Amino acid sequence: MSVPTQTLPRQLDPQQLAEKFAATRALTDHLVSRLSPEDQVPQSMTTASPVAWHRAHVTWFFEELVLGRVDNPEHRFLFNSYYEQIGDRQPRPQRGMITRPSVTEITAYRANVDERVTEALKTGDLDERALELLEMGCSHEQQHQELLLMDFKHLLSLNPTDPVYLERPRDDAAEVPSLGWIPVPEGVGEIGADAAAGFSYDNERPRHRTYLPGSMVADRQVTVGEWKEFMAAGGYRRPEFWLSDGWATLKETGWEAPGYWRREEDGTWTTFTLSGRRPVVDSEPVMHVSYYEANAFAAWAGRRLPTEAEWETASSAWSYGDELDPDRCHPNNVRRNTLGGVWEWTQSAYLPYPGFEPEEGVASEYNGKFMSDQYVLRGGSALTPRGHSRKTYRNFFPAPARWMAGGLRLAADSPGEPR
Amino acid sequence: MSVPTQTLPRQLDPQQLAEKFAATRALTDHLVSRLSPEDQVPQSMTTASPVAWHRAHVTWFFEELVLGRVDNPEHRFLFNSYYEQIGDRQPRPQRGMITRPSVTEITAYRANVDERVTEALKTGDLDERALELLEMGCSHEQQHQELLLMDFKHLLSLNPTDPVYLERPRDDAAEVPSLGWIPVPEGVGEIGADAAAGFSYDNERPRHRTYLPGSMVADRQVTVGEWKEFMAAGGYRRPEFWLSDGWATLKETGWEAPGYWRREEDGTWTTFTLSGRRPVVDSEPVMHVSYYEANAFAAWAGRRLPTEAEWETASSAWSYGDELDPDRCHPNNVRRNTLGGVWEWTQSAYLPYPGFEPEEGVASEYNGKFMSDQYVLRGGSALTPRGHSRKTYRNFFPAPARWMAGGLRLAADSPGEPR
Amino acid sequence: MSVPTQTLPRQLDPQQLAEKFAATRALTDHLVSRLSPEDQVPQSMTTASPVAWHRAHVTWFFEELVLGRVDNPEHRFLFNSYYEQIGDRQPRPQRGMITRPSVTEITAYRANVDERVTEALKTGDLDERALELLEMGCSHEQQHQELLLMDFKHLLSLNPTDPVYLERPRDDAAEVPSLGWIPVPEGVGEIGADAAAGFSYDNERPRHRTYLPGSMVADRQVTVGEWKEFMAAGGYRRPEFWLSDGWATLKETGWEAPGYWRREEDGTWTTFTLSGRRPVVDSEPVMHVSYYEANAFAAWAGRRLPTEAEWETASSAWSYGDELDPDRCHPNNVRRNTLGGVWEWTQSAYLPYPGFEPEEGVASEYNGKFMSDQYVLRGGSALTPRGHSRKTYRNFFPAPARWMAGGLRLAADSPGEPR
Amino acid sequence: MSVPTQTLPRQLDPQQLAEKFAATRALTDHLVSRLSPEDQVPQSMTTASPVAWHRAHVTWFFEELVLGRVDNPEHRFLFNSYYEQIGDRQPRPQRGMITRPSVTEITAYRANVDERVTEALKTGDLDERALELLEMGCSHEQQHQELLLMDFKHLLSLNPTDPVYLERPRDDAAEVPSLGWIPVPEGVGEIGADAAAGFSYDNERPRHRTYLPGSMVADRQVTVGEWKEFMAAGGYRRPEFWLSDGWATLKETGWEAPGYWRREEDGTWTTFTLSGRRPVVDSEPVMHVSYYEANAFAAWAGRRLPTEAEWETASSAWSYGDELDPDRCHPNNVRRNTLGGVWEWTQSAYLPYPGFEPEEGVASEYNGKFMSDQYVLRGGSALTPRGHSRKTYRNFFPAPARWMAGGLRLAADSPGEPR
Repeated sequence: MSVPTQTLPRQLDPQQLAEKFAATRALTDHLVSRLSPEDQVPQSMTTASPVAWHRAHVTWFFEELVLGRVDNPEHRFLFNSYYEQIGDRQPRPQRGMITRPSVTEITAYRANVDERVTEALKTGDLDERALELLEMGCSHEQQHQELLLMDFKHLLSLNPTDPVYLERPRDDAAEVPSLGWIPVPEGVGEIGADAAAGFSYDNERPRHRTYLPGSMVADRQVTVGEWKEFMAAGGYRRPEFWLSDGWATLKETGWEAPGYWRREEDGTWTTFTLSGRRPVVDSEPVMHVSYYEANAFAAWAGRRLPTEAEWETASSAWSYGDELDPDRCHPNNVRRNTLGGVWEWTQSAYLPYPGFEPEEGVASEYNGKFMSDQYVLRGGSALTPRGHSRKTYRNFFPAPARWMAGGLRLAADSPGEPR
Repeated sequence: MSVPTQTLPRQLDPQQLAEKFAATRALTDHLVSRLSPEDQVPQSMTTASPVAWHRAHVTWFFEELVLGRVDNPEHRFLFNSYYEQIGDRQPRPQRGMITRPSVTEITAYRANVDERVTEALKTGDLDERALELLEMGCSHEQQHQELLLMDFKHLLSLNPTDPVYLERPRDDAAEVPSLGWIPVPEGVGEIGADAAAGFSYDNERPRHRTYLPGSMVADRQVTVGEWKEFMAAGGYRRPEFWLSDGWATLKETGWEAPGYWRREEDGTWTTFTLSGRRPVVDSEPVMHVSYYEANAFAAWAGRRLPTEAEWETASSAWSYGDELDPDRCHPNNVRRNTLGGVWEWTQSAYLPYPGFEPEEGVASEYNGKFMSDQYVLRGGSALTPRGHSRKTYRNFFPAPARWMAGGLRLAADSPGEPR
Repeated sequence: MSVPTQTLPRQLDPQQLAEKFAATRALTDHLVSRLSPEDQVPQSMTTASPVAWHRAHVTWFFEELVLGRVDNPEHRFLFNSYYEQIGDRQPRPQRGMITRPSVTEITAYRANVDERVTEALKTGDLDERALELLEMGCSHEQQHQELLLMDFKHLLSLNPTDPVYLERPRDDAAEVPSLGWIPVPEGVGEIGADAAAGFSYDNERPRHRTYLPGSMVADRQVTVGEWKEFMAAGGYRRPEFWLSDGWATLKETGWEAPGYWRREEDGTWTTFTLSGRRPVVDSEPVMHVSYYEANAFAAWAGRRLPTEAEWETASSAWSYGDELDPDRCHPNNVRRNTLGGVWEWTQSAYLPYPGFEPEEGVASEYNGKFMSDQYVLRGGSALTPRGHSRKTYRNFFPAPARWMAGGLRLAADSPGEPR
Repeated sequence: MSVPTQTLPRQLDPQQLAEKFAATRALTDHLVSRLSPEDQVPQSMTTASPVAWHRAHVTWFFEELVLGRVDNPEHRFLFNSYYEQIGDRQPRPQRGMITRPSVTEITAYRANVDERVTEALKTGDLDERALELLEMGCSHEQQHQELLLMDFKHLLSLNPTDPVYLERPRDDAAEVPSLGWIPVPEGVGEIGADAAAGFSYDNERPRHRTYLPGSMVADRQVTVGEWKEFMAAGGYRRPEFWLSDGWATLKETGWEAPGYWRREEDGTWTTFTLSGRRPVVDSEPVMHVSYYEANAFAAWAGRRLPTEAEWETASSAWSYGDELDPDRCHPNNVRRNTLGGVWEWTQSAYLPYPGFEPEEGVASEYNGKFMSDQYVLRGGSALTPRGHSRKTYRNFFPAPARWMAGGLRLAADSPGEPR
């Protein structure tokens, strides 16, 4: 197959990497500084991980892949997530059983690896591949910063006392901008990451041609207010809007609103946030909806979800504007042509791009082996560290998942009235 | 979006439809004529259905959609598969609990609906939409002929006495043709069904443009002999070839060979067929493998599965050659440029084509609502009635499914040595 | 330990056994004569078995234990229920997958074994132990007659058309006799079967002394009308009456009435019977209640369930009066001092009597190995063949089981007002 | 029924109670002093609880039942174990999700309630019933001291690094005393607690007559060495020794040795203890065996488990000798006529004694509602606080449970050779 754009290897600068490494590690520490040791241990469900585990795992990743030497073999066993090539590991559902090493010991482990990486950068001990893996390790830790926040939110939500991770002022609703459409013209387009253009994961590459059918993508996300209309129209009671698996999931789980929402005695809705339980805000993007729900909403609206290619093509009209603010950790009100706040479900299954080549070595297990039974989300969320995401970024989750910050924007075959 | 080819409505001929209807119904009866009433009742797993239920369900489909009147409301409840618009129905996992109506009564039900449809065709009581639905009903019954055979095979396989559905001569292995490659040139191509070109399901439409990356598709299917090489190379023990969900499924199920295979005491492999348990035949296409296994095989071979678009483009080089022979019900040896024998997994998730419009009315639930967490298989199998499948046909199953006649052919980015 | 009564071996009369054997086999055939082949195949749940399997299993039991030779080794695999000493067998949850041998073949199998057993009895080929096992085999087949009816009732109940096994006239309610109490005086009593006194299972032996605390046992069973009072008093909504496991089961299952009951739109209750769905009858004994429900009812009534020893001691005041009538298969109205209609839950766990000795050989697995996590029921039911049960008979089921004909009678420490 | 012994109400001394209360609370604090906050949060399985939860729950028990006022309503919700009368509560499987209140806050909660109880005792604010409940609350906290240790052991065991709760010297094996038998003569005996004779739970009362069949009970527990003989004899591979449910559990779980045992590469066995992983010691009592295993061992040995009545009668020959030593937390070597080390499974189901009356009020839910599907264990273990258990004490667990310190001693109908 043809590779549309010729790529040259990027040159990585150790000094810049050292700064990025330090900043990334510091952000994790900052996010965790509000947590007690108790907060860091439990695992709220199999697909989530304890905060302490996240902290140790990202550290082990640097030790294993960049430094190439794991001082304590127990760390390899305990903190390997899923790398089969590295050997056996703590079973995923039992990550919450690890009370030793303690949080203090994990903090020390982090410091030790920080020191060793920093030293290795200074002494020039890291070859080009190690530098690449260090860059990837920073991106990896950023991913875990978001995971850590969303997993911890899920854990807190199971505490009936509605605890608060961080205090913040009450929310101010705003007028929601009317919906505009970004046209995506019919024809051959190009999507995907150019390896020479800066860091990207293997799953974003290669940049490649695709055929766009000619369509429109909404210039803003679906709001809480719009979701309430869907609910009022019987959205959770009318199977005609739902995928079959989605309807079965709804029946099984009893879904009748987005994740974390609760109908109060006065009939209003609240939602659980990292700042405790709060009334939902109509002008915010709807969040914690599954692929099934996003699809059903779009069907109800007479629209559909965009494909990855449509989304990425339309995204040239948009800017990032609502990434992680560690003092907020919650989306702002919806704005036009603005990315962030919530990840946006696309209609596209998470599959390899034509010409996809996994990373070499252990890193080959980073992305490719998850390319089944998941859907791509694009953009980024209010939990995504600044600078982590990009327009070619492919986030992915299974269709029923709701605990990440997932929302949606609509697409349409034509700009006319919805059917 | 643009529709590449202008389509005109097809004119359906009642006389031809009457013949197709009669032939379709007769084939079902023929396939079932080898079964006792006992054989027709049990449901071997939730995703399979009893033979008697298949026979009644396809009959109800004609009654409900074509005749527009269900004489016995119990039939509507018992034999509605999944049409939410029609109302409640027997829970899917309890289809095997229906011992009444009896097999004799179901036979009478079939005769009654046969008569009513035939009469309506004669008297011209069916409008154009009813004729379209009658045509779809025939295709629907053909699908259930394959389902009936594969479900019944699964049921029989759970009987430790290895019963025989039909006797047939012993298999003769043959020389396997060496593997050739069909080039699929880079550029804009067209796939999908043209509504004017004959019957197709809504999920095959519209015919639309797509971008082909430039690749090669194998001119024959993977054989049993090749699969044994994969097994000998540790295919079922080496996680590096597997998707993560696939490896987890393997661990959970203990898969170490395709479905129905059993290692005998002398170390050889047998497989359960509709003619009882038999030695596997190296020159036959491998069958009863899941998407996960197909993917792992391709990874081991340094190749990949074709996409739907690649498959359909390459298929112009192929002819159907191994469809249902009711006296065999088992694939023949692999031949080049020949379709049939086994359905072929593609890499593509089952998703709507650009511009997809579901059928109107009840039939809207036929295909579209299953477009999640499934993968497309193309071609047809030795259980697919002659004339049922076509090159635009999109069959679909979840990644772990093995009880249908699923196999594979390989694709490659380039014709060089596999990596 | 002491054996209170000296026992002498009983002498078994081959002629009498031949008659008993013939009559037992004939009753099974009679009960099944109303069923189609379809009816005989499905297994409605893991703890139930198909009718055809029951018919073949009891036949195999005679072949294996009495004749000592199983002609067809497949029968040994297919129709061995749980005898580990005999080897592997069809997994219990897959008994409903056996469509071959057919019902006709099973009928022939029965005839063949009938002939061989009859012949062996005539020629005197059976030694004393074989005669004992033949007697046990008849009792075993009687047990399966009841199982067959209750399992088939469960199967039919899953058919939404409420099919009818046998027609019978409408029920006539009657006046319920007021409740009297049988005093059970304090002191040493004797319970259990005397081996010399006629056939008994090993679990009923030995006859042994026990200490009775001094109490009262009701002279009739609890009625449907009384159960409705319990329901009206919130019996299914008030945890204070329930064992902890019972309450958890209620929460999980949604129980709000006995098994097979359904609240109709007019607020009345119907129940599924072997004669189809019918209004419940206040003067009949309540049936299809679990140990948990029986216990909760007794707690609500300020009473308790009797122990086995109390029940057996009190039973000298009672006669059997409502055993299987093949043209009714349903309890009659409650009468004082009458056994049958429904099995009666006791408070006693199913445990070995002091001095319990299992049967020898394969038959050792008949009863003893089930002595955990089950509760004893006494009496007999309207599905129990005449002459099968006796006052020392120990039936047993797990606490949540409802599909057998289980009801209750009350006991009290003192005859005063309930607390 | 008759109450064999006339009882007079005991008079409770507030000063003695204050001392008992202080000592009990101090022991909990001492046991927990070795734990980090991390250690106290996770819940290792549904039937276990977090250490922090145990600490708070026992505190709430005093607040709710003795003081009659719960200051913080969240504590009522979070730390109510199963008292339905008190209202809704944190679902049991989610006790491990409570990271707030923190361990520090729970420590403060304990101090607050300590102060309030102590003050109330001083001021005489507690009526007679409150004093009784205070006494029960101390016994309750002692129970939770054992639960806390066994639950924490289970949690630690899931950490692959084999962490250590407390260091202790290596074990010294000893000669195992030969087995003697305590005769239990046939006739009427008396068992159960006399309410006037000191504190007892409701489930131990009333003292009542029972008939003893005449038997023998072993004068010491079964040892690790003897258990190895059972294993060597195929104990875990021979279904003939096992209850049916036990064998099914073995097949499902893969049991091949007691809980926590692991076969090392050199073929020796180690076990996980609160002092880390250690070689098993032949002269210690076998521990962490289920009722099913205990039963199978007894069957293999040609013996049986004693009934409660036999055990309690024989126990007059025994003294407590191996209760909780907080610096050991592990059984000592087996000695004759000595109780403790491990709880001993009896053959008896956990059922109400004749004349059983539950405690009044909320405490009525303490014991009675668990009287189904559990078996009685007698004696006490190396994790049971000194003075907590007594010879009438009825501990109870479900048949498959292994995580508590459960072992066994044998009984026999006659002193002859085992069968």
